[in-house]
Amino acid sequence: MAAQGNAAAASSPLVLLAPKTKTKKKHFVQQKVKVFRASDPVLSVFMWGVNHSINDLNQVPVPVMLLPDDFKANTKIKVNNHLFNKENLPGHFKFKEYCPQVFRNLRERFGIEDLDYQVRRCPSQHAFHNPQQISSEDVADMHSILSEYHQHIVKCHGSTLLPQFLGMYRVSVDSEETYLMVMRNMFSHRLVVHRKYDLKGSLVAREASDKERGKELPTFKDVDFRNNMQKVYVTEEQKEKFMEKLNRDVEFLVKLKIMDYSLLLGIHDVGRAEREEEEGEEVSNEEEQEAENGQSVGLVVGSYGTSPEGIAGYMSSCKPLGPGEFDPYVDVYAVGSCAGAPQREVYFMGLIDILTQYDTKKKAAHAAKTVKHGAGAEISTVHPEQYAKRFRDFISNIFA
Amino acid sequence: MAAQGNAAAASSPLVLLAPKTKTKKKHFVQQKVKVFRASDPVLSVFMWGVNHSINDLNQVPVPVMLLPDDFKANTKIKVNNHLFNKENLPGHFKFKEYCPQVFRNLRERFGIEDLDYQVRRCPSQHAFHNPQQISSEDVADMHSILSEYHQHIVKCHGSTLLPQFLGMYRVSVDSEETYLMVMRNMFSHRLVVHRKYDLKGSLVAREASDKERGKELPTFKDVDFRNNMQKVYVTEEQKEKFMEKLNRDVEFLVKLKIMDYSLLLGIHDVGRAEREEEEGEEVSNEEEQEAENGQSVGLVVGSYGTSPEGIAGYMSSCKPLGPGEFDPYVDVYAVGSCAGAPQREVYFMGLIDILTQYDTKKKAAHAAKTVKHGAGAEISTVHPEQYAKRFRDFISNIFA
Repeated sequence: MAAQGNAAAASSPLVLLAPKTKTKKKHFVQQKVKVFRASDPVLSVFMWGVNHSINDLNQVPVPVMLLPDDFKANTKIKVNNHLFNKENLPGHFKFKEYCPQVFRNLRERFGIEDLDYQVRRCPSQHAFHNPQQISSEDVADMHSILSEYHQHIVKCHGSTLLPQFLGMYRVSVDSEETYLMVMRNMFSHRLVVHRKYDLKGSLVAREASDKERGKELPTFKDVDFRNNMQKVYVTEEQKEKFMEKLNRDVEFLVKLKIMDYSLLLGIHDVGRAEREEEEGEEVSNEEEQEAENGQSVGLVVGSYGTSPEGIAGYMSSCKPLGPGEFDPYVDVYAVGSCAGAPQREVYFMGLIDILTQYDTKKKAAHAAKTVKHGAGAEISTVHPEQYAKRFRDFISNIFA
Repeated sequence: MAAQGNAAAASSPLVLLAPKTKTKKKHFVQQKVKVFRASDPVLSVFMWGVNHSINDLNQVPVPVMLLPDDFKANTKIKVNNHLFNKENLPGHFKFKEYCPQVFRNLRERFGIEDLDYQVRRCPSQHAFHNPQQISSEDVADMHSILSEYHQHIVKCHGSTLLPQFLGMYRVSVDSEETYLMVMRNMFSHRLVVHRKYDLKGSLVAREASDKERGKELPTFKDVDFRNNMQKVYVTEEQKEKFMEKLNRDVEFLVKLKIMDYSLLLGIHDVGRAEREEEEGEEVSNEEEQEAENGQSVGLVVGSYGTSPEGIAGYMSSCKPLGPGEFDPYVDVYAVGSCAGAPQREVYFMGLIDILTQYDTKKKAAHAAKTVKHGAGAEISTVHPEQYAKRFRDFISNIFA
């Protein structure tokens, strides 16, 4: 599932091009994530649809418990506007939401409130969940695991390293269908990630290519992690807590015969962020001018900067966050470095690419890799149990 | 336009079957208006649609000014729910809103706020606008006068005796189409109307039939008004203010070649209401039992009893209303009787049935009536100018 990969999961594609806060702008210029524009008809329909869905669901009673039918449910809406709202939306479009009651329940369990989930055109860089394009096969895969996924989230009380699936939609514009999954961001938009790894626990073909290394924020892999002598510096207690979650989540994935998932590790360097912020202030006036001339207005999905309730209410009741500080209710995948670490860092760690089931896709890949590397080689494509064991062994050793 | 007639305009078809306030219940039992139930699929789709529309419009900027296209605009939405929300809505339905920007503008000019316009399932008898079924011809007629109607409302700053058109919709369920117009109630739901008249200014065939007289609240007509020696007791100043509005509105109707409209006059007898309230209290315990056993839950469109803003906010900031008192911002068609009146009354006066244009419909009727009553007889079907003059002359004489 390519769309769930590093680049996409790392940061919201919906960010502000010209953030109002001078000191933080440099980060967003650096990240160069894909930016949807309001003029993108798929995005505008998506935003319309999510708003519609949240409003619609507010009229629908919350069921006492979810029933099997809720995991097969969907709601389709087809809109034809004649001489109405043509500045903001295509004249004809369709919007489909999958399993509305299930995802509403999941959002509640993940502590995502309606106001934070709804899409607003407001200038704020605090997007904390993002829509990602997926394939129709991903939609089918998601349906096949949704019931078990939901049970898992119930059991672990929403405390998981798995992707937090918040909503799944289909947008149809000009008879072209786009499937979108909304997930909570694994990284933070306040604390920029300076280095990131995609770790699978295999050393075969797990090294960033030269092309990848040329990027501003390359995705390094297992071999790079070893070669860089990279370590995650957290307290023993935090490590235990993390491994407990990981083991529980990996068990769940094994049960579903899922494999080929990765641990996405993002590292925020607190000292570097402070230095860059200072430098950024020097050039910000110039950049601001450019941004304003460009007339580009970014869009965010969710914002806790302006909403009167939800996470916003929580946030506004707290003291402002200093360098390297984060709100654990917002940046749920974040862990701060411990006292003895060589430098102050914040780690963002979560599991990605979990929609690959062994049965459906990997048999062919397994056969191909065995031919290429020989049956004895340490290859990435193995059985779910083997994959899980190797993965856990590797991850338990990333800590200092 | 039958749907705009007396019975329909007189009181909301969406009222509470079992109101919570003991002392007011008797009135609603007496009125016996048509009550939609939540199980009515057309009503549930209508309620869904209005909520959807208000939410949708909140995402659409208010235009600086309305353009000709806005008067031809519409938005159509088609919904297919699969295993979703089937308790509350049909699985498949369509909803069409006509000229959304125009009616939003009109609602604003009439002081109707979104929260009061939206449909909620809450127990309150304060419905102050109501949906009425109209024909597809009415929809066409409405389109043909909407631009002029809007201009008129702008000119008179919303101060009019004409129906306050608030929204026009089409609901399609099981491939059956229902056209609905939402208008502000001319009568009040707090002050029950004890007697009502439909006045056209003609004495030909303008007498309530025996069948009509047998009803609980018959619609009396011009001849009955004369025979009953009925009078409207208001101050000279109130009469002048009323006639000023009437003349302005009638001029507008003449300009559009509209005729056959009526003045709807509802009379609330304050003393009788107080007596009935006392009697009502004696039997209310018994009735309450019945109502609760019946399990019927009424529905209201708009309610200023529970909404946190809008008229609700205004209302809650005011002192509670006593017998015969009303809020002129809510009951805009109401005038209280003056000091020298034989009994304390509240009059509700507004123009109804304004969608009959001479050109389109009345030529045939004119010919038929001339044959029946002779060319010299004082007949109801005349030219718009004649109709207006006769109407104004008659109405100016209803006052004491």
